[in-house]
Amino acid sequence: MSSTFGKNIHISIFGQSHSDSIGVVIDGLPAGHRIDLEKLGQFMSRRAPGRDEFSTQRSESDMPEILSGLKAGILCGAPLAAVIKNTDARPGDYSEVADKPRPGHADFTAQMKYHGAQDFSGGGHFSGRITAPLCIAGGIMLQLLEEEGIRVGAHISEIAGVQDIPFDPVSVSEEDILRVRKSAFPVNDIEAGEIMKSAISAAKIAGDSVGGIVECAAIGLPAGVGSPMFEGMENMIACALFAVPAVKGVEFGSGFAGSRSMGSVNNDPFTYAEGRIMTLTNNHGGILGGISSGMPLIFRAAIKPTPSISIEQDTVSYSKKENAKISTKGRHDPCIVPRAVPCVVSAAAIAIYDALLGSGIYR
Amino acid sequence: MSSTFGKNIHISIFGQSHSDSIGVVIDGLPAGHRIDLEKLGQFMSRRAPGRDEFSTQRSESDMPEILSGLKAGILCGAPLAAVIKNTDARPGDYSEVADKPRPGHADFTAQMKYHGAQDFSGGGHFSGRITAPLCIAGGIMLQLLEEEGIRVGAHISEIAGVQDIPFDPVSVSEEDILRVRKSAFPVNDIEAGEIMKSAISAAKIAGDSVGGIVECAAIGLPAGVGSPMFEGMENMIACALFAVPAVKGVEFGSGFAGSRSMGSVNNDPFTYAEGRIMTLTNNHGGILGGISSGMPLIFRAAIKPTPSISIEQDTVSYSKKENAKISTKGRHDPCIVPRAVPCVVSAAAIAIYDALLGSGIYR
Amino acid sequence: MSSTFGKNIHISIFGQSHSDSIGVVIDGLPAGHRIDLEKLGQFMSRRAPGRDEFSTQRSESDMPEILSGLKAGILCGAPLAAVIKNTDARPGDYSEVADKPRPGHADFTAQMKYHGAQDFSGGGHFSGRITAPLCIAGGIMLQLLEEEGIRVGAHISEIAGVQDIPFDPVSVSEEDILRVRKSAFPVNDIEAGEIMKSAISAAKIAGDSVGGIVECAAIGLPAGVGSPMFEGMENMIACALFAVPAVKGVEFGSGFAGSRSMGSVNNDPFTYAEGRIMTLTNNHGGILGGISSGMPLIFRAAIKPTPSISIEQDTVSYSKKENAKISTKGRHDPCIVPRAVPCVVSAAAIAIYDALLGSGIYR
Amino acid sequence: MSSTFGKNIHISIFGQSHSDSIGVVIDGLPAGHRIDLEKLGQFMSRRAPGRDEFSTQRSESDMPEILSGLKAGILCGAPLAAVIKNTDARPGDYSEVADKPRPGHADFTAQMKYHGAQDFSGGGHFSGRITAPLCIAGGIMLQLLEEEGIRVGAHISEIAGVQDIPFDPVSVSEEDILRVRKSAFPVNDIEAGEIMKSAISAAKIAGDSVGGIVECAAIGLPAGVGSPMFEGMENMIACALFAVPAVKGVEFGSGFAGSRSMGSVNNDPFTYAEGRIMTLTNNHGGILGGISSGMPLIFRAAIKPTPSISIEQDTVSYSKKENAKISTKGRHDPCIVPRAVPCVVSAAAIAIYDALLGSGIYR
Repeated sequence: MSSTFGKNIHISIFGQSHSDSIGVVIDGLPAGHRIDLEKLGQFMSRRAPGRDEFSTQRSESDMPEILSGLKAGILCGAPLAAVIKNTDARPGDYSEVADKPRPGHADFTAQMKYHGAQDFSGGGHFSGRITAPLCIAGGIMLQLLEEEGIRVGAHISEIAGVQDIPFDPVSVSEEDILRVRKSAFPVNDIEAGEIMKSAISAAKIAGDSVGGIVECAAIGLPAGVGSPMFEGMENMIACALFAVPAVKGVEFGSGFAGSRSMGSVNNDPFTYAEGRIMTLTNNHGGILGGISSGMPLIFRAAIKPTPSISIEQDTVSYSKKENAKISTKGRHDPCIVPRAVPCVVSAAAIAIYDALLGSGIYR
Repeated sequence: MSSTFGKNIHISIFGQSHSDSIGVVIDGLPAGHRIDLEKLGQFMSRRAPGRDEFSTQRSESDMPEILSGLKAGILCGAPLAAVIKNTDARPGDYSEVADKPRPGHADFTAQMKYHGAQDFSGGGHFSGRITAPLCIAGGIMLQLLEEEGIRVGAHISEIAGVQDIPFDPVSVSEEDILRVRKSAFPVNDIEAGEIMKSAISAAKIAGDSVGGIVECAAIGLPAGVGSPMFEGMENMIACALFAVPAVKGVEFGSGFAGSRSMGSVNNDPFTYAEGRIMTLTNNHGGILGGISSGMPLIFRAAIKPTPSISIEQDTVSYSKKENAKISTKGRHDPCIVPRAVPCVVSAAAIAIYDALLGSGIYR
Repeated sequence: MSSTFGKNIHISIFGQSHSDSIGVVIDGLPAGHRIDLEKLGQFMSRRAPGRDEFSTQRSESDMPEILSGLKAGILCGAPLAAVIKNTDARPGDYSEVADKPRPGHADFTAQMKYHGAQDFSGGGHFSGRITAPLCIAGGIMLQLLEEEGIRVGAHISEIAGVQDIPFDPVSVSEEDILRVRKSAFPVNDIEAGEIMKSAISAAKIAGDSVGGIVECAAIGLPAGVGSPMFEGMENMIACALFAVPAVKGVEFGSGFAGSRSMGSVNNDPFTYAEGRIMTLTNNHGGILGGISSGMPLIFRAAIKPTPSISIEQDTVSYSKKENAKISTKGRHDPCIVPRAVPCVVSAAAIAIYDALLGSGIYR
Repeated sequence: MSSTFGKNIHISIFGQSHSDSIGVVIDGLPAGHRIDLEKLGQFMSRRAPGRDEFSTQRSESDMPEILSGLKAGILCGAPLAAVIKNTDARPGDYSEVADKPRPGHADFTAQMKYHGAQDFSGGGHFSGRITAPLCIAGGIMLQLLEEEGIRVGAHISEIAGVQDIPFDPVSVSEEDILRVRKSAFPVNDIEAGEIMKSAISAAKIAGDSVGGIVECAAIGLPAGVGSPMFEGMENMIACALFAVPAVKGVEFGSGFAGSRSMGSVNNDPFTYAEGRIMTLTNNHGGILGGISSGMPLIFRAAIKPTPSISIEQDTVSYSKKENAKISTKGRHDPCIVPRAVPCVVSAAAIAIYDALLGSGIYR
């Protein structure tokens, strides 16, 4: 059940980096809504490899084929299944990994769990490629959320320590979200973006990699969605988010910085504004007690540097039972952060839509 | 289902701040294990209020009464139910809250979700008091984990920005964990602890509050526990952790700092040592691909400043439909971080034990 | 997780026959509805022992104490916890069972599963007594269903092969349901009921027991509730129903008899009537494809004869590793069917209410 | 989530009668086991249409294509996805159904649930065709169960009221199970089988249909598998079984007949035999308190007559809002019972394997 998610919708993801196909089954989608497959394809392309100089040269169209669940483009109430063929799989590239676990990868832990039965080609089910079905689900949820007036978007908040201008937590707008959605390298501060790109280029030349932070915002979410304790918005978003490989941290609202603040500063005063109750600041990131406040939902996800680097690293050889060296060849991104953006959005969209269905607000 | 957790064990928490009782039902515990109730009581006392000058003066023994699931102190396979009577409830303290939501609290979002039917006395089900049943479950899991040689402990990593010495992520030991467990104010650096205490005192005098960070470590966890994607160790720990009110962020291993690092630095080299495969560093926090690596599991949780402060704050009055002022009276902690430590440990213990049961390693 | 149920509400039942208490936590109940505790008590009394000559003389008030989840009698959105103290427990009665499993009981299978750690007093968690918390949940769901115009009721369809007049599957009315609800021995045919009572008396005198069939009807359920495949109304009702000890079979609509019929006879023709689409017959028992049709939901549950009989039976002695004899003493019902009626109703009410919440029809 | 099943494994079924494909994702399968695809194909062929004179002439190979989860024929720990292309779909056959619900079908209830958005071609997701993915899952579980020495098989117990010789509930053997497995029309009594076939032929000529009962046995299941209350073997098997369209009843062991018996007769005496504790009779059907006893697990499923018949029936026209007539054309089985046999076996195998994984007995 490791690859299933959801309380009110149910997502089941399958596939390995080099299996015949990868895909997802989504059960519980409400009947009667149109899914725009072209728009879904556009969203998928934001995660697809081979788009720019920084991403892996593996070329896959990543356009999902819908096997079931749609009737003339409309959700028919039956589970929606979508698959992507793995057309450019090259199992030969990865043979060394079977014996020598790559530092920072799941190779070793998979070996411990599956005792050698795991599909180690390209990382198998642990591959970043498996975020493509996550994005299919995410892309569909985004369309359904949009029907409800809810927009979810994200930008690169940091790469290699270079910071973008954050979303305004109180007034982030649909325009802000649509603007970053269009960009292949979504930043609010173009200049910062250029410095980030330089850092990625430098890492690439050095055979190294860099990480970063993605900031995500959801607007239009009504107040009252979510639940206390284990099914809060934070719990569910975090649970979905850590399915994206390389995510190692998440913070909502003022997060870690807020923990260094005073209550009198971090508390967000309530006020009547625009005919409803709002907060003047948004250190709570739109969530109090696990439930949405109606303010923008804001969180940040820490993405570790891509573990696959061509610099030689220390590892072990299982067969020789001794220390060894490894230099990861094959097609790898010196920075996964830009491609992680739609994955983070997808994880958020899935968790938010699931909570919305559970809230009884949505029809 | 908001207050239920677990895939292999199942926890169902109930109670409000001022309901007759609070408690928990734990289903799926393996039969035949002895539960030491005195030890459980000691663990509970670490979360209990009224222990020192900084915590709320509400005095409750917080000793759980076991209603079922034990036969002569041994788990009998039936669900274990435990309750704590709310003996010192003072509903009168909180009447203002029904009309004026406290900034930083769930008062407003609960109002949006439950439309006034919620129990607002003392925060109802959103109260920090509801972490007591979480700690009952956590304390029981800790004992079961200990039988398997797994220890979970936490210390105050930061309060008001004052930093403690972190656990050594590679060599944190049983002694390190036992030492912090004994302390009412668990820090590695006594001097830093004193400065933290001063900051809390200052906040208290000012009618304000401070937050902080809790660092948690689990040692002895074998490699191979956990799952890819949505049921990874990170997902499950995060999902449990955000049930603790005031937690607004979590990071595993090098976390946010690691996102500013290079792959060549952040990757943890593998090596043969102590007759098994280990990593030389532990930026991965003991988890790769959602699965334990056998290295110490390390994470940090950001705790926001206690929202209840006596300084007057801006809020609204529902009844008057206008802006208003509120000054939270009643018994409140100027800093919740010390009492959050056993809650964070409990969330971790529950998630880890659940994963361990699911791994098939544990008998 | 064996004792938890529900997709949209969540029920967690605990307790053993002779534990301190038994009870239930119900999570996911909608806030704002009043629960009539007196009415709940009346419903509970229908399952309670000691009401008549046929039931066990164990006397327990079985009145649940509500620990949380209500605020001034209104559901407040927090999990509702209810307990019943075990005041008349007599562990001494059952000591023989630890060594000699009673035929037809779970003593042996519990021994195989829990290896002696189980609480064998009075059957422990397997006791019929654990249906009391099921009835707490069921009684609450009945009240919530009633608010939606849905009534669930059951009668004794058979005891010892003596048949009652069945509910009319097309026109069973609220009056029919209310009438059987009032009776301690709910039958449609009073004379048949007297013959059943004679059969029970005869069994009691012989130290033997008899079984029977309970027929349950739910009316007022709108069409369109439920789901295809694994979450159909039949799946969920059956799943809940087999939690009632002694239930060994279930059939919906024409059930087993229908399997001997022809399609042209068993199919229920559709017709416009009373301003909506109905069926002229109701062999489908109100469910087609797992989804309610708007016709009365009808099912029957087979209840085996009470396994506890005073006639000497063949069994084994674990300690002597040889065949042995056992004669069950203690307080036992020669026929459990009358007391099973509210349990069957409860299982149905829980499953139906859960489906209703999931349908999006209910607000 | 209607089409998902399982606590320890997780099955997600998708597809409509005339969608591009149908299939299943199975998550939680243990790594390292070989799946024999040829054997799986043979099992699938038992459910496939077009095998004999009685089944629909729709011809589909029904051979599943494995998209993921296997590495060189071995389960690799990643979710297994399998699809079957719908190559012989003929949507044109079913256009009338959009306006006139077929009696006994889910057409009407689907209309009520999905408000016209459902895929009504061939019954959409409610089609018997969707049992093909159930059988993929079932066929895989059967292989895994067989590795543990557990065999599951079923025979036609009744068709049109004609009864086959039942399995001996105490001594049903591997040979008994293998014998019925080989047959396209699996009965123990060849002569009874011929009479059944005559009844089917007669129904076919009359444009009518007949139903029947399938009896299923599982042998080799160790004692101690399953759980009390809601996760008992009976609950889980029933929950899986009612996913098979046309199943309207289930009984375990002596079932409904047992409810007419006396306790002294229906109770199964324990005895030491073959070096272990057994029962002399098996009225409990191998399950007591939801937990396996080590005796053969025996249950029967009632299958209603195929609702699709060519005889003209009364129905309604949605568009005309008046009563109407319908005569179901297209390819339909006059008796679905023979093809239901592998579906019943699959439902049982899935539920049993899931319980086995949960029991901690299986590695």
